[in-house]
Amino acid sequence: MKIAILPGDGIGPEIVTQAVKVLNVLGEKFEMETAPVGGAGYEASGHPLPEATLKLAKDADAVLFGAVGDWKYDTLDRPLRPEQAILGLRKNLGLFGNLRPAILYPELAGASTLKPEVVSGLDILIVRELTGDIYFGQPRGVRECPDGPFKGQREGFDTMRYAEGEIRRIAHVAFQAAQKRGKRLTSVDKANVLETFQFWKDIVTDVHKEYPDVALDHMYVDNAAMQLVRAPKKFDVIVTGNMFGDILSDAAAMLTGSIGMLPSASLDANNKGLYEPSHGSAPDIAGKGIANPLATILSAAMMLRFSLNKVEQADRIENAVKKVLAQGLRTADIYEEGATKVGTEEMGNAVVKAL
Amino acid sequence: MKIAILPGDGIGPEIVTQAVKVLNVLGEKFEMETAPVGGAGYEASGHPLPEATLKLAKDADAVLFGAVGDWKYDTLDRPLRPEQAILGLRKNLGLFGNLRPAILYPELAGASTLKPEVVSGLDILIVRELTGDIYFGQPRGVRECPDGPFKGQREGFDTMRYAEGEIRRIAHVAFQAAQKRGKRLTSVDKANVLETFQFWKDIVTDVHKEYPDVALDHMYVDNAAMQLVRAPKKFDVIVTGNMFGDILSDAAAMLTGSIGMLPSASLDANNKGLYEPSHGSAPDIAGKGIANPLATILSAAMMLRFSLNKVEQADRIENAVKKVLAQGLRTADIYEEGATKVGTEEMGNAVVKAL
Ligand SMILES: CC(C)[C@H](C(=O)O)[C@@H](O)C(=O)O
Ligand SMILES: CC(C)[C@H](C(=O)O)[C@@H](O)C(=O)O
Repeated sequence: MKIAILPGDGIGPEIVTQAVKVLNVLGEKFEMETAPVGGAGYEASGHPLPEATLKLAKDADAVLFGAVGDWKYDTLDRPLRPEQAILGLRKNLGLFGNLRPAILYPELAGASTLKPEVVSGLDILIVRELTGDIYFGQPRGVRECPDGPFKGQREGFDTMRYAEGEIRRIAHVAFQAAQKRGKRLTSVDKANVLETFQFWKDIVTDVHKEYPDVALDHMYVDNAAMQLVRAPKKFDVIVTGNMFGDILSDAAAMLTGSIGMLPSASLDANNKGLYEPSHGSAPDIAGKGIANPLATILSAAMMLRFSLNKVEQADRIENAVKKVLAQGLRTADIYEEGATKVGTEEMGNAVVKAL
Repeated sequence: MKIAILPGDGIGPEIVTQAVKVLNVLGEKFEMETAPVGGAGYEASGHPLPEATLKLAKDADAVLFGAVGDWKYDTLDRPLRPEQAILGLRKNLGLFGNLRPAILYPELAGASTLKPEVVSGLDILIVRELTGDIYFGQPRGVRECPDGPFKGQREGFDTMRYAEGEIRRIAHVAFQAAQKRGKRLTSVDKANVLETFQFWKDIVTDVHKEYPDVALDHMYVDNAAMQLVRAPKKFDVIVTGNMFGDILSDAAAMLTGSIGMLPSASLDANNKGLYEPSHGSAPDIAGKGIANPLATILSAAMMLRFSLNKVEQADRIENAVKKVLAQGLRTADIYEEGATKVGTEEMGNAVVKAL
């Protein structure tokens, strides 16, 4: 089994090192190869997603990804900026199904900005479509405004679009995920305004016929943003498009107060996937040895579960993480009085020991 | 001064009645005329925005709007659904500047799902562009997918767009609002993915040159959704497009836990405006006499302030609302033990008395 290791920028390398360490003590044979991506890719070969990196990712059975981005690349032309690497990987590898759990570990309930009774026990899964929508739709650009009161001025424009098959396949992913959990799926749209999402709603409703055991409801995106704040525990699985999913999954992650704990998976049609923490590259704390490696370690567990078919090993890692939390070990981002503050490496070592 | 009164559906008529009562005791001369809108418009003349209603709104100096929508209209064709009335009014009246304050009244701090220290004293203003973006961009519809792996299938599509002048005018509204408050403006975009919002960012940056006394920063929409949950008090004024503003303003309103308290204004280039509560038509509690009329009463205060140039009267109403809260009067939606529970009409009467 071949794993492409793409550490990226900022805290990426530090946290990925810990996840690799954990993978190495499982007693399994993984072939791991590392390549630069994001700002590191740009430094190495003038492009955030170097060809060799893309080839490695394509040839691997799974990709473990750290994080990309740093202020120093903010002034580059957009196609050269670090984030383009992640968009390029998603598109080139066909990783249309993004699974983002938002879980609040009981030990960390205090870290949330929400009242304990509103979030304790939170366990929701956001299924975000990842290769379509306004992220990739053509045409897009800056042009002369063709009509209306601003005719003749410059205007920026983009195209939102979803084809039937694109909606069907992500709906199947979401219904199947719901079947394995609480059997409730909320499809988030803006059907009252957007043609794309009226179409989305119609297709999801049609796919529902194949999953009579799952209860489906539809919610407008503005209402979903409100309900996530008001009563997040009412959700089980949420499915939505790329743009709305970007916003809602980050809001949901932040409800837990510990985004440093949240992994994510991005899957293709054959369950090959890219795994990355839900948080960013945090250049402000890079190199200080204080970043939380647990989201990346838990992403490695998701990789074992979904792409490498090593469910028991995934369970082992997840249990080891629960154990170190129960032991009171905390990195700075989730530190509370009375706990034991540890750095990135100590936290990785503690997980290894707990295994 | 002529005010068009559009009560709409659900709790709309009940809450607007209270706001009208408040306007009537101010000792000013207002000419008020009422017309049906939304579901009520459809019932009256087959269209959610009847021609006579639109004409009334156009001829008036300001519009006081209740709320529209009811489940029974969900099966109508989209152009006939109640929400189309509000989109039609915005577009036809050129109401491009939506001001949505999210304020947490000290007496209601307990109503929030967030911890008191995170939200107490919250006072942010969201400036949402309201007549552009993907809400109105053409072309849009359902067509045969022209290219890519889903070529030939049906696809839903929409067009996001912002012309330079559209961005400039909303940026001016936002900078000027910030000048009157904490002098900080956060422009929310998705410049790392969307051409429209890279363009948006560039134009807002340019307009900033005219407001050197305001501190401007830029934030991606996914991060803004997170920061609203993590540390909402760090914001002063937020400016963003129609779609992102729809989502973020509802999330921000819900942070207060008392969306029944929040007014909104939608202004044209000459400060003519439409004023409506931030909450919806709540058909489940319509006719029961328990809806909270304060958001509508506070919307009437915004109308006096922004469109009718009666700043003192606006202050009077806002102070009267503070007074009834201090007296411990609460409608069901904001009720807490120890308070005095009142109905819609009693609450309206209490505000009148406090004046
Ligand atoms: C970096 C950016 C392009 C990306 C996105 O918008 O998808 C990120 O926010 C994410 O959610 O993975
Ligand atoms: C009803 C709907 C069309 C509307 C919108 O999306 O603008 C509403 O959500 C709002 O925010 O006023």
